[in-house]
Amino acid sequence: MLLAASPGLDWGTILVSLAIILVAGKAAAELCERVRIPAVLGEILVGIAIGPSLLGFVEMSDAITVLSELGVIVLLAQVGLEIDVTELRKVGRVSLMVASIGVIVPMVSGFGVGQLLDETTNASLFLGAALAATSVGITARVFGDLRTLNTREARVVLGAAVADDVLGLIILTVITRVVETGDLDPASIGLTILVAIGFVVISATIGLAVVPRVFRHVDAVTTSYAVIPVVATALTFALAAAADAARLAPIIGAFIAGVTLGRTEQRERVEREFNVLAMILVPIFFVSIGLTVDVGAFVDAKVIGLAALLSVVAVAAKMLAALGARGSGMDAMLVGVAMVPRGEVGLIFASLGASVGVFDDELYAVVVAVVLVTTIVAPPLLRWRIRVAADLVS
Amino acid sequence: MLLAASPGLDWGTILVSLAIILVAGKAAAELCERVRIPAVLGEILVGIAIGPSLLGFVEMSDAITVLSELGVIVLLAQVGLEIDVTELRKVGRVSLMVASIGVIVPMVSGFGVGQLLDETTNASLFLGAALAATSVGITARVFGDLRTLNTREARVVLGAAVADDVLGLIILTVITRVVETGDLDPASIGLTILVAIGFVVISATIGLAVVPRVFRHVDAVTTSYAVIPVVATALTFALAAAADAARLAPIIGAFIAGVTLGRTEQRERVEREFNVLAMILVPIFFVSIGLTVDVGAFVDAKVIGLAALLSVVAVAAKMLAALGARGSGMDAMLVGVAMVPRGEVGLIFASLGASVGVFDDELYAVVVAVVLVTTIVAPPLLRWRIRVAADLVS
Repeated sequence: MLLAASPGLDWGTILVSLAIILVAGKAAAELCERVRIPAVLGEILVGIAIGPSLLGFVEMSDAITVLSELGVIVLLAQVGLEIDVTELRKVGRVSLMVASIGVIVPMVSGFGVGQLLDETTNASLFLGAALAATSVGITARVFGDLRTLNTREARVVLGAAVADDVLGLIILTVITRVVETGDLDPASIGLTILVAIGFVVISATIGLAVVPRVFRHVDAVTTSYAVIPVVATALTFALAAAADAARLAPIIGAFIAGVTLGRTEQRERVEREFNVLAMILVPIFFVSIGLTVDVGAFVDAKVIGLAALLSVVAVAAKMLAALGARGSGMDAMLVGVAMVPRGEVGLIFASLGASVGVFDDELYAVVVAVVLVTTIVAPPLLRWRIRVAADLVS
Repeated sequence: MLLAASPGLDWGTILVSLAIILVAGKAAAELCERVRIPAVLGEILVGIAIGPSLLGFVEMSDAITVLSELGVIVLLAQVGLEIDVTELRKVGRVSLMVASIGVIVPMVSGFGVGQLLDETTNASLFLGAALAATSVGITARVFGDLRTLNTREARVVLGAAVADDVLGLIILTVITRVVETGDLDPASIGLTILVAIGFVVISATIGLAVVPRVFRHVDAVTTSYAVIPVVATALTFALAAAADAARLAPIIGAFIAGVTLGRTEQRERVEREFNVLAMILVPIFFVSIGLTVDVGAFVDAKVIGLAALLSVVAVAAKMLAALGARGSGMDAMLVGVAMVPRGEVGLIFASLGASVGVFDDELYAVVVAVVLVTTIVAPPLLRWRIRVAADLVS
């Protein structure tokens, strides 16, 4: 009633939906963690369960979209905050090798499978791109749970995962433009790539140089505790908008904002702020992924077969990335396994593929299923390999 | 680009608007606090400045509406959290007297002024209601700043302010229904009041009995830190939705959720969560109030005259509430002064009056101006009177 000011917004429904999403998402996440499955899976699955195609408790609305997209922006800012730029440089060469193979092989094999199965060129391109991403969040969490974040393998994988995300998002930007404009002119594609890389390099360089100083100054001249977290949030939104203006995904801007905020003296305060915002907003993003999945699309031999095939390709292709770590004295197999989970970025690709009309309900369901499968198999494989590696050493 | 999934949402604009709102709001709040003006004023004024009628940097959109309304819900939950039910009961009788006079006198005089000036009956009713609210937040903050929150006067005023909010919101519910349905049948009005009071009494009683137990249980069986804050947020949204279903303002439900959460053992964790959410969301609410004010409407002798007249009436009417504290041995004048600021609830009335079409741009501007004036004059008056009272005692 209060909100009659916006006739398009039905507040009773919005508030009930949010309450259901939060409680169901948290319950599912908690259950998953008990059985050592990544919480994100629980959130997606419960989203499918409460969504229109099964229980029908909650439907997508503009309000949920707004909050879930702010959620993915906060998530990428958090991931950026976790990145230690100095440490990354030390393993830079190996990480880049792993990342390059980890992007190229899945892209090519995803595209190949798409073509073999007579999907359109556009759909095949998107399939390849969706398989190219690596989930920083899930990998970092498993390494962290096993207290092995300080190993060289973990650093290589995290570096490679970040590079994969940026490469993947650039690929996504290019493919989306090609699909939307039908423009296959190499000069235009080259320009898009240049703008994308230029944006990343320039905004990261300026940000790393300027943001820590500005924050020190702001912190010195202001009195309220809230100033730094609020300005950090505003910076994240502003860089996300700038990425959007450069025709990149807003999350790239959010990620760069996170990296630069990670170098400020006020990092911990920012981290605490983002953690709390993420507690509420990030589950809304993952649950809403589930809300958009049509379960009916899964009950189809073709979808199940394609999902199984692509899952195998997705796991095998990423494990080949291990080749990039050979000869470095690291456990290459461990690096390969750690690159397997696709997680949140793969899902972003899937939803974008659906939104530009390249994926129909079936292909969307397939990609979501592949992301789920790679994310489920990775943590146990990773735990197993970390133990094996530890035994080999001792 | 990422968010192409919702063609109605222009993400570049949304993100830039949010960044501007956060930075401008925080800068204005910080400046105001320097000169000892309540921060909320700075946020509203800066909203007017960056809004369509002056600089035109930011316009209202559905996304901003969603976030600002979640902001006012979180704000009322925070206010509820601050309420100590046990302490309130001790000053209950005096508080209720002060609250009753503090609602009736401003309502009647606001209505009278409206009628004298030939406004419609509906507009006069809304004017009266808008003058009836008392801002818990601003009053509590001034008492807190002067470290006098533990005086009996402070408790009486806080209790009265809460009662005023609830009474005011019930009045608002009734008036809105009368305006919307044109239904002046006493039985129907009585039913609305009964449902409203029934909702408040029943949900508060059940909530106070059940919520602390449920939270203790949830806390015992779960492992993740995030569970309690997330469930608390969900409870707040759910009770807000329930209030909406009972045809009350959602913020009443949020307020009751806050009160019940304040009795849980996990109160501090919930408070920390709400504080962080409020850091981002609450300024969006107040800045967006400014965004909706048309400055052009102020440049009008009638508007300025009416605002001045109503401001005097608003201050005088609330100071009469002091009569409710006479004979209790307290500083009645201090109580009266503390009841003056209208703050956020007055603004909610103003925006609702505009949304149901009872207030035109001019009357909306008048009410916002009155709220601003009462909120500006209260803190210095309050500081002066607290010092006088201290001198009287010592």
